Amino acid sequence: MKKHILVIPGDGIGPEVTAWGKAVLEQVGKTFGHEFTFDEALMGHVAIEATGDPLPDETLEKARKSDAILFGAVGHAKYDNDPSAKVRPEQGLLKIRKELGLYANLRPIMLFDELLQASSIKPEILQGTDILFFRELTGDVYFGEKTRSEDRQTASDLMIYHRYEVERIAHKAYQAAQQRSKRLCSVDKANVLESSRLWRETVQEIAKQYPDVQTEHMFIDNAAMQLIKNPKQFDVVLTANLFGDILTDEASQIAGSMGMLASASVGESTGFYEPIHGSAHDIAGQNKANPLASILSVALILEIGFGLIEESKAVVALVDRALKEGYRTGDIADSNSDKNKILGTAEMGKLV
Amino acid sequence: MKKHILVIPGDGIGPEVTAWGKAVLEQVGKTFGHEFTFDEALMGHVAIEATGDPLPDETLEKARKSDAILFGAVGHAKYDNDPSAKVRPEQGLLKIRKELGLYANLRPIMLFDELLQASSIKPEILQGTDILFFRELTGDVYFGEKTRSEDRQTASDLMIYHRYEVERIAHKAYQAAQQRSKRLCSVDKANVLESSRLWRETVQEIAKQYPDVQTEHMFIDNAAMQLIKNPKQFDVVLTANLFGDILTDEASQIAGSMGMLASASVGESTGFYEPIHGSAHDIAGQNKANPLASILSVALILEIGFGLIEESKAVVALVDRALKEGYRTGDIADSNSDKNKILGTAEMGKLV
Ligand SMILES: CC(C)[C@H](C(=O)O)[C@@H](O)C(=O)O
Ligand SMILES: CC(C)[C@H](C(=O)O)[C@@H](O)C(=O)O
Repeated sequence: MKKHILVIPGDGIGPEVTAWGKAVLEQVGKTFGHEFTFDEALMGHVAIEATGDPLPDETLEKARKSDAILFGAVGHAKYDNDPSAKVRPEQGLLKIRKELGLYANLRPIMLFDELLQASSIKPEILQGTDILFFRELTGDVYFGEKTRSEDRQTASDLMIYHRYEVERIAHKAYQAAQQRSKRLCSVDKANVLESSRLWRETVQEIAKQYPDVQTEHMFIDNAAMQLIKNPKQFDVVLTANLFGDILTDEASQIAGSMGMLASASVGESTGFYEPIHGSAHDIAGQNKANPLASILSVALILEIGFGLIEESKAVVALVDRALKEGYRTGDIADSNSDKNKILGTAEMGKLV
Repeated sequence: MKKHILVIPGDGIGPEVTAWGKAVLEQVGKTFGHEFTFDEALMGHVAIEATGDPLPDETLEKARKSDAILFGAVGHAKYDNDPSAKVRPEQGLLKIRKELGLYANLRPIMLFDELLQASSIKPEILQGTDILFFRELTGDVYFGEKTRSEDRQTASDLMIYHRYEVERIAHKAYQAAQQRSKRLCSVDKANVLESSRLWRETVQEIAKQYPDVQTEHMFIDNAAMQLIKNPKQFDVVLTANLFGDILTDEASQIAGSMGMLASASVGESTGFYEPIHGSAHDIAGQNKANPLASILSVALILEIGFGLIEESKAVVALVDRALKEGYRTGDIADSNSDKNKILGTAEMGKLV
């Protein structure tokens, strides 16, 4: 198979983790006889520094021409502390999601047995958890109109959904549920929000087309609680953009660490694959970041992007083996971990 | 002291739990020689059934005339499954919050030692946690304009904040932080939302007036994760309406159960006190609900509403003693609990 992959390392720990994702992809290419070619492009703070634009046209062009995009992270404390900054790294990420029509963000919560102890949640509560989030990614309050009054005393963001936006991601989520344990939980705040009522109505309609899937509707506040109280109750979870942002970060604690979770954004064209963790500037460049989320993003590229199931499984198996052999990065180590097996980014990357 | 309390039982388990809150308040009156008088009023589904209005004028009038309001819960599955219902129980709750100017919702996360094991989170992660949430309660996407297009294909809710709304709750939160461990964490999504940028800007300004308090700003997605990863890092948490709704429900798992958490809504006039749990229709009328959140709401009435610190402590001590003696309701029982000490609503209420 011949595929062209665009690597967008981005900010903070982005470059150090994507380097290992890319290395694993190269290795898979060699081992399985695929021809993977690579290019690189700028996004986020590094792109603002170089060009003034968080998503330069060149990056977008390269993205459109690639078969898959491996992304790191964007963000910088400089902008976080300055709410009045007009140009921000995150705009690059939001714009590429919109431009490429990446409306469905898949976030599988994988549980590696060896990491059961790394979570703040009790192992007996976690054991057996297997959740696949479908987060809507190109609508909601993220993309609705923003206003700031002239006197700067009032600010607003429009939380808005169109029925077709809910329909297309609902179909994807139901199709996935059919392949899994046939249960889908749709999360909203329909007791308060009109956009959530449209969401619920639409999901109720679509549900009729998938009579083999059992549908549940849950309010976001309750879902945030249930997710830690009893995560096993969930299989496929379908959410709007903002609620999905919150729930999937929360769910990362189920997997032991954000450093273990990968995500795939798909939709109208080229898929976009990234760790769910952020740019983590506090540990950037210190060889401390966990490269496994980027490596697991590569597993998603192989599975979802290229349909290379065997190759994808091989990558997950390598990660599993490293963990079974007791190797950890700092974020997933606990008091029982062998101190000699706590590795830096590069060592863990090489090991896998 | 002479005080007049309005009881609004509401829907589902509301009546059975507020009955015990009221009983405890009567007992406190007798024991400490206060003259507490009571009245009752309708809100929610029961009010819709009786009058067509989720918040009848009569209820609002009674509320304005009282010194404190003890509330149960509102909500009914009938409306949840029918997103097109025009009149909904929750409208009563939202309207009374707005009408009484209850802009600050205080949700203390109390940890009873005996319940450390009842949580899905590891006891060593929980131990020592003590968080006081300040959730803004009369603004945000809850009260911004709602629209539905004529073809019903598009729906929106306006997420909107005015600077004064952020200022007044920020002052309350900072004042509380000064009385506690002098740390405040403000939660927003300023990397994406304009209303969050106004929120952050305003909190940054107010922070200057409280130089003895250490301020941190955190994105909501990260906060949802940190809250379970390491809850001890938080002292006072300041949030907007929607984010506070989600985070405090999530935080209920820290306390072992929603059935243990009380909240106080204060602002321009009469305070409003309620369990943070909902109407839980699935267990209503079965003598299964935990009355302790309502009883702890009474502790908040005494402390925050009436300044009766000793009386408030006495109520909390009674709850503590019941737990120490091994008594539990179903929601806070675990495999180590004495089966003979698992009580129904009424038995637990009587015991306290
Ligand atoms: C960086 C930020 C804009 C982004 C989001 O909120 O979508 C991130 O938190 C994510 O989840 O991918
Ligand atoms: C019932 C509902 C409208 C309410 C809210 O969202 O504010 C509830 O969840 C709460 O937290 O008090």
